[in-house]
Amino acid sequence: MGDIGVENKRKKIIIDTDPGIDDAMAIFLALQSPEVDVIGLTTIYGNVRTTLATTNALHLLEVAGREDIPVAEGSHTSIKEVPKLRFAAFAHGCDGLGEINIVPPKGKPIPQSASDFLIEKANEFPGEVTVVALGPLTNIAKAIESNADFPQKIRQIVILGGAFSVNGNVNPATEANIFGDPEAADIVFTCGADIIAVGINITHQVVLTDKDLEDLASSSGKYAKYVCNILKFYIDYHLEAYNIRGAYLHDPTVMFVAIDPSLMTYAEGVVRVQADGIFRGLTLFDNMKKRWGEVTEWSNKPSVKVAVSVDGDKIIHLLKERLKNS
Amino acid sequence: MGDIGVENKRKKIIIDTDPGIDDAMAIFLALQSPEVDVIGLTTIYGNVRTTLATTNALHLLEVAGREDIPVAEGSHTSIKEVPKLRFAAFAHGCDGLGEINIVPPKGKPIPQSASDFLIEKANEFPGEVTVVALGPLTNIAKAIESNADFPQKIRQIVILGGAFSVNGNVNPATEANIFGDPEAADIVFTCGADIIAVGINITHQVVLTDKDLEDLASSSGKYAKYVCNILKFYIDYHLEAYNIRGAYLHDPTVMFVAIDPSLMTYAEGVVRVQADGIFRGLTLFDNMKKRWGEVTEWSNKPSVKVAVSVDGDKIIHLLKERLKNS
Repeated sequence: MGDIGVENKRKKIIIDTDPGIDDAMAIFLALQSPEVDVIGLTTIYGNVRTTLATTNALHLLEVAGREDIPVAEGSHTSIKEVPKLRFAAFAHGCDGLGEINIVPPKGKPIPQSASDFLIEKANEFPGEVTVVALGPLTNIAKAIESNADFPQKIRQIVILGGAFSVNGNVNPATEANIFGDPEAADIVFTCGADIIAVGINITHQVVLTDKDLEDLASSSGKYAKYVCNILKFYIDYHLEAYNIRGAYLHDPTVMFVAIDPSLMTYAEGVVRVQADGIFRGLTLFDNMKKRWGEVTEWSNKPSVKVAVSVDGDKIIHLLKERLKNS
Repeated sequence: MGDIGVENKRKKIIIDTDPGIDDAMAIFLALQSPEVDVIGLTTIYGNVRTTLATTNALHLLEVAGREDIPVAEGSHTSIKEVPKLRFAAFAHGCDGLGEINIVPPKGKPIPQSASDFLIEKANEFPGEVTVVALGPLTNIAKAIESNADFPQKIRQIVILGGAFSVNGNVNPATEANIFGDPEAADIVFTCGADIIAVGINITHQVVLTDKDLEDLASSSGKYAKYVCNILKFYIDYHLEAYNIRGAYLHDPTVMFVAIDPSLMTYAEGVVRVQADGIFRGLTLFDNMKKRWGEVTEWSNKPSVKVAVSVDGDKIIHLLKERLKNS
């Protein structure tokens, strides 16, 4: 990764986020990365409900001293309203940040919805804005639904979502972000935008170990110190749920795709999402190796790129370097 | 594989089949294998409609000189009736046997339905009968539904079905046998019987090449000669659909599991089948690596064995030997 010092060469990104312990790491990583220019955060339910995601986004920007970055609050519900949204307090704590008793932020979100903010920025900088989507895809689906040009005006959408050829993490069929809003996910995956999807088949290869945590803890970097504090809760969850000592770094891994896409390899094909039934939220990628004899629900849909390999150790190394040098 | 010469040590099998070119190979393989004793064929729609499957089953037994083996005709429709069953004339020919103009059989099916025959044999030889299911699972699901003891009375059900962690062959989500009757498949997978499932993730590793075909053609074995004749149509289909020169040997591969289960390795877990929507017929295996925080549709269901590895070359070698020595 080269040092891109010139402000106007930086890739403009909007982080759609539900902070979230690994969201916090991804946000700090982005703020420490010269390759990207964070032009806004949009919030969404997922790890926590949307209002708390907004509070946490504002808090994290204040920790970073980056109150100049606008926060636009996103949808409070999925596209198709469900009786009860699912939140991941068991993994991130009731506050979404490891129950560390955060300082309430002074700032407020801008008076514009997340989807309107996404559309405005796509129109203001056509072909220049990358959305890094770290939660359910409701805001982005709403932007697509209210502005048909959005998929063409956006530079790229980098998605943490899906479980490609592996079990999910909500249940065997589905990964949490897609499960959060399967209808939105299917809209986004088939919208025709330049899309990179990174599923848990990839992010489960990026494991922060106890040794990495010690390494971060030994640093005086402000982000390193902050994340060490919030990671305790997250690491305890991984021991409980996966019987591993360590933590899967979903969101920072996906942020690295925006920073340097060459850190992974990709396959191209159509992704569809199951809307109903016991497989609600399942993502299925057509690898295009068979010439189907019949028209399928994958036929004549736009292709996306799905990450198929990653060097997990390299990602962990780069992440630690950036969080320590803060 | 040892030579099991003593008649009463042979594993009793019933082949539930929709012949079908690779079904024919599997049936001949079974008849040539001292490890198994074919005590009946039951027929099902799939490659062809059920009545033609019955005709072909009778024909194949007459080719083999094994008119002593009863054929019981199976269901003409799936459990949940669909507007139109799908047949695979494109792969097997309109006659199901490569359009070779077969001699019509003289024999007739027994006056008993496939599911009744399955139940009768399970009761007659409790714990001794293995069903080798090479088509949609309707007959077996009906046996389970009309006889609650069937899963415990049957020794094992070996299933060709599913696409585990890979794309299907009907569409990206689903494999043909499961797609043929997803409701039946879910009943069978969760019935509590001793089940081995072999998906196309395994059978696509067992490829009969042109060289293998030459090898078979050079033999004077009657089964070798017969299958060389019917394989032409099937091989042409593979070139068309998969752009490979060769043929996936689904059914014979699965027959080898009945003959010698040690030819594959297996993982244990729960398999569920999607009933509706664009993923109808998708099979999803819970690998049990995560402790789910919530009750899922996989919780508290019986486990099955799913084949995870195979030595394709060894299967091809063994198959050729047995078909040549006939």
